[in-house]
Amino acid sequence: MYQLCLNELTPAQFLAEYWQKKPLLIKAGFRNFIDPISPDELAGLAGEEEIESRIVSNKNAVWDMETGPFEDFSHLGEDGWTLLVQAVDHWHPQSAALIEPFRFIPNWRIDDLMVSFSTAGGGVGPHLDQYDVFIIQGQGKRHWRVGMPDSSLKQICPHPRLLQVSPFIDCINVITEPGDILYIPPGCPHDGISLDPSLNYSVGFRAPAQKDLLTGLADHLIDQDITGQRFTDPERQVPASVGAISEQDLNQVQALLRQLVDDKAFAAEWFGSYISHAKHELDTTEPDPHYEADEIAEYLEEGSVLAKLGGLRTLYYQAGPAEDIQLFINGDRFLVPANELKTVKMLTDQVSLAVEDCQHFAADHGRLQLITVLINKGYWYFTE
Amino acid sequence: MYQLCLNELTPAQFLAEYWQKKPLLIKAGFRNFIDPISPDELAGLAGEEEIESRIVSNKNAVWDMETGPFEDFSHLGEDGWTLLVQAVDHWHPQSAALIEPFRFIPNWRIDDLMVSFSTAGGGVGPHLDQYDVFIIQGQGKRHWRVGMPDSSLKQICPHPRLLQVSPFIDCINVITEPGDILYIPPGCPHDGISLDPSLNYSVGFRAPAQKDLLTGLADHLIDQDITGQRFTDPERQVPASVGAISEQDLNQVQALLRQLVDDKAFAAEWFGSYISHAKHELDTTEPDPHYEADEIAEYLEEGSVLAKLGGLRTLYYQAGPAEDIQLFINGDRFLVPANELKTVKMLTDQVSLAVEDCQHFAADHGRLQLITVLINKGYWYFTE
Ligand SMILES: O=C(O)CCC(=O)C(=O)O
Ligand SMILES: O=C(O)CCC(=O)C(=O)O
Ligand SMILES: [Co+2]
Ligand SMILES: [Co+2]
Repeated sequence: MYQLCLNELTPAQFLAEYWQKKPLLIKAGFRNFIDPISPDELAGLAGEEEIESRIVSNKNAVWDMETGPFEDFSHLGEDGWTLLVQAVDHWHPQSAALIEPFRFIPNWRIDDLMVSFSTAGGGVGPHLDQYDVFIIQGQGKRHWRVGMPDSSLKQICPHPRLLQVSPFIDCINVITEPGDILYIPPGCPHDGISLDPSLNYSVGFRAPAQKDLLTGLADHLIDQDITGQRFTDPERQVPASVGAISEQDLNQVQALLRQLVDDKAFAAEWFGSYISHAKHELDTTEPDPHYEADEIAEYLEEGSVLAKLGGLRTLYYQAGPAEDIQLFINGDRFLVPANELKTVKMLTDQVSLAVEDCQHFAADHGRLQLITVLINKGYWYFTE
Repeated sequence: MYQLCLNELTPAQFLAEYWQKKPLLIKAGFRNFIDPISPDELAGLAGEEEIESRIVSNKNAVWDMETGPFEDFSHLGEDGWTLLVQAVDHWHPQSAALIEPFRFIPNWRIDDLMVSFSTAGGGVGPHLDQYDVFIIQGQGKRHWRVGMPDSSLKQICPHPRLLQVSPFIDCINVITEPGDILYIPPGCPHDGISLDPSLNYSVGFRAPAQKDLLTGLADHLIDQDITGQRFTDPERQVPASVGAISEQDLNQVQALLRQLVDDKAFAAEWFGSYISHAKHELDTTEPDPHYEADEIAEYLEEGSVLAKLGGLRTLYYQAGPAEDIQLFINGDRFLVPANELKTVKMLTDQVSLAVEDCQHFAADHGRLQLITVLINKGYWYFTE
């Protein structure tokens, strides 16, 4: 378990003063930091087909970028490169634990854990991101500089697949040591150059843009085969010009769209499904054969414990205390009775189910059915 | 030119009493009707790759359906089948003329002209459509029955690709003769059985559903590479449950969507592009080589005349008398100065440009540029 110290700030104070406002250096955010993963293990993950990885190198001021999987790193030499692996939390439970201390931000806002290994001189260059990030320094040291958003910065493309920015004025200039954390809001330029072989862990966030939301909603209508209402015009008048799109027709088109968007129940349903869908592949293995509910009941009663699959996105929405709870897990939606909020929170707010939690699930038919489905999907698995 | 008689109703009266409300038989809607196309010509169109056609047959109570192109009709026998060809207005100017009398409904609501040739006993069976339609009887006779919308009707699938309805009560029961017209609103069951070899012309309408509008808007954002605003939450508070999608977050997601939908200027821009896009292929041939503007000017001044390509969708939107006019032609958008409304209407409201119209285009640089582009796209073509 990693214990986060936010420079003596409470999470509430951090949110009020820094979150989405300005970068923060959190010196020794994790005391006596121990890396959850080794560079060799990370290289192993970068060799897997289903895991997204890339190497950025900078040799004699020439930038290069390759995408994985990678079998061999020997051509890269001793320094000037960084290996970056996405969604390590999906594949490496010990690394996934690094996300947990940041769950004073709700689950749906958290994206994934990216891990980078950099040799001396390595880094991705000065750049900015659209998303908040906490960058944790693991082994080694890195020279990090962070600036405030600056619209005068220019986009630079030192390689067709690298987007950097022109030199920026820093407000943080630090050599990070194991356990140090940088919080960087969207749009803040940052640049980290490794001083020696070092690991960095990026807890990244998710912030859908209007386009993402609208295409997500459109996909939902298509998936669910929802046609909705058709344009109707029983009140139509003879138009002055047949070519004109009238103000009234356009208003009605907008009204049809607005109705889709305004419906709170519908919005909750699609947004929950949409945002609970992991962007990167999950490491799911369905038990084969599937368990029967009574087998599960037996294990749970006997003192088994369950862990949640790394990177699994678990959310819920409840419109009011008497309303059914909508539980969203990786795009799937489960309706749970209003009085089962405790049950739902065990699934959404915890990374594991201890003995007494498991017994809670065994004690009720509906709960047992639910956990059986979730175990058979490979979303929760027995650890003991 | 076909002259429409709406049973002594004015178009305004027809709209008020029948449009989208109840079916209407218009006896001799076109007096002395002459078919614009022959069954042989229709069969020829059905042989083309780019033209959508199908044959529905009903032999000894067994329904069948094939899709074109069709080279040979000999296996079909003497009776019990119908050939239906979509968007004949795109390929056959004389048939396209049949749509014009119905332009007391604005252009954007009109879809295409479907033409069917039926042998004795032929028809597609009792069914209902989502769209308004005017069905014009050409040569031959057909026994048509039309009913009112009835939610008790059942869907029947006598063939995997045919959707029919259970027997319905008719409010119109007529043997249509050349020039007779049936107006049928959405959802009204109808069934037409041919008495002898006959032609029917369906002027069909377009009425986008909420799903169509939303996916259209999403495609527009993607095409135009509009990301829009990202979700931001600088005011975030520490949540009671990290798994919850809070009311406030959901409201904000809806607000982001609502903003996309509420923006009138944006709505006009995408809806105009979206709805001006023809559903079926157009018979465009770009002049090769392209004309220069001064060549065009010369032709126009010399008394040439221009015709609009069949099926071309031409619309405009003007937010107010002082605002630029947005002219939409088959998905393309042209900005035209506010004082050029007359010019725009010549393009959207007329099927051809007579000598004096052409001279109007030659008389101004901007107009000449516009018509040059449109001619070079194959959207207008010289007929003399
Ligand atoms: O680890 C790295 O080299 C890049 C980290 C970074 O820029 C980020 O997570 O935004
Ligand atoms: O012409 C036909 O056989 C079918 C006409 C029809 O049902 C329609 O246009 O809706
Ligand atoms: Co970054
Ligand atoms: Co029909």
